Formats: sequence, C-alpha cells, structure tokens
Amino acid sequence: MDEERWLSAEQLAAWKKLIAVVSLAPGVLDAQLQRDADLTHFEYFTLAMLSEAPERTLRMTALASRTNATLSRLSHVVSRLEARGYVTRAPCPADRRATNASLTEEGWRKVVATAPSHVETVRARILDALDERDVADLDRIMARVLTRLDPEGRFLPGD
Amino acid sequence: MDEERWLSAEQLAAWKKLIAVVSLAPGVLDAQLQRDADLTHFEYFTLAMLSEAPERTLRMTALASRTNATLSRLSHVVSRLEARGYVTRAPCPADRRATNASLTEEGWRKVVATAPSHVETVRARILDALDERDVADLDRIMARVLTRLDPEGRFLPGD
Repeated sequence: MDEERWLSAEQLAAWKKLIAVVSLAPGVLDAQLQRDADLTHFEYFTLAMLSEAPERTLRMTALASRTNATLSRLSHVVSRLEARGYVTRAPCPADRRATNASLTEEGWRKVVATAPSHVETVRARILDALDERDVADLDRIMARVLTRLDPEGRFLPGD
Repeated sequence: MDEERWLSAEQLAAWKKLIAVVSLAPGVLDAQLQRDADLTHFEYFTLAMLSEAPERTLRMTALASRTNATLSRLSHVVSRLEARGYVTRAPCPADRRATNASLTEEGWRKVVATAPSHVETVRARILDALDERDVADLDRIMARVLTRLDPEGRFLPGD
C-alpha cells in the first residue's frame, strides 16, 4: 500500500481530536436544550437563524443553507416547529413556487427565553476554553475545512 | 438581559463555522464508508482503534473512551460488528468482571481494505485544506475545547 497517502503523526493527532469534538459536541448541546427548552440543537438553531433574518422570514432553501441541512431534513423539522406554534410557512410573495418560513411571535419569545442559558452553555462547554487568538485561528481553519466539506458553498451564504 | 454574557462578533462567526463542520462532517464520512465498505464512520473508527491496540484487543471501557462513546452505545455497535465476524468479546483474563473486545483476522482484513479510500476521503474533504501551521493550530484548539467538552478526560486516554 505504499502508493497510499497516509496521514502524518501531526495530522492524525489533530484529526482524532477533531473527531472527538464532532462526536461529543452535539450531545452536549442537545442535552442542555432538551432539558431547558424541550428543543434539539437543530430545532433551536433553526429558530435562531429565523430570528436574525429580516422580518424573521427566510425562504426554505436559504434556511436550509444556514442550518447546514438538506431541504428534506429541514422540512421535517419545520413541520414539528409549526405544530408547536413557533414557525409558519407560506408561499413567497415574490416567487409563488418558493416557500417562506417565518418565526411567529411565540417562536420569537421561545428564542428570547432559550438563548441566555444556551449561550452560557456554548461558552462554558466550548468557547471559554479559547482566547482571542484561538478564536481567530478557529475561524480561519473552519473556513478552510468548509471549502472542502462544502465545495459549492451551499452552507456559507454571503452574510 | 444585560447580565447575560453574549458572544463577540468574532466568537459568533467562528462558532457558526464550527457548527457547520460538526453538522456536515459526519454525513460526508458516513456516506463514503457506507458506499465503499458498508460501515458507518463509528463502526470503522471502532475497528480502527482495535487495529492499533496491542494484540488488537482493548477493554470495552477503554474502547468506549477512544471512540468518544458511552459504553451503552459502543455495546450495541460491537454486537453488530460481532455478528459480521469482525470483532469478538471475551472476559478479560486479568479481571474477569471486565470484557475485552478483539479484532478478528477478518476484522483486520476489513480495516486494511477500507483504510486507503477512507484516508483519501479524510484528506480530500478535510485535511488537504490545511497547511502544517493550520494542523498545529487545530490540534491546540481542539485540545482546549476538549478540556471543556470532556472535563474528566474520559475520551482522551494518555496515548
């Protein structure tokens, strides 16, 4: 197998740590949000992305990009959020073939009520370990990784 | 909510990119391994960790640490790998209350056959985006994050 391009010791060490973070982070985020707000992290992140958008509304395709999800996965989750009164869907006025998702007033209150303890968890369990230089390096490295994981830039809208 | 500690713009930007990587990486790794080897990434990683161990054997508790999994989750996966002939379990000779998992000869051949295309995918979809400095920075940053995600060091054995 001498034609294979194996990993250097440094690459392997960093890769194993990245896998550990990728494996552990979702459970930590989900556990806090389930306990405190009865939401998965994906559900919370969907509500949060809508809360930041103009008029708290996004096309479903744009919302899928911002939540790193396929349209199919997002549609299932938005159905659940709609049933709980946090989101509504309607045809886009500018393009009737497209569907908009909007945060309801109740959805907005849910985000406002949930954000503080969630942000506290993100800080305590992840970001407080990093100083300013680490944060800048993390931003640069993750941006580079995303050029390979997401070569078409589907999940990195311009903003 | 002025007592809350919100994220800086730099933290928020880096955090969203990390979430994108955490969201996208498992699907990319699973898709390649399912297609080429009929294994999930977790199944492959379990076999790979056994393949690196002395006598290709680890206590189940140590294997859980190295695969970033609870013992319960690992036990389910090892049962599937046992049914496919890749792994066997037996009481630990040194402590009969503990269980060892061992890679079979067939499991070893499976790792050897699967590793090249998987390593190629890891490089092409993630690591080739990073130069030596990036890899060193990634290692440092992920180690720091793991001090918070995994404060007891359960998932970072000494080696």
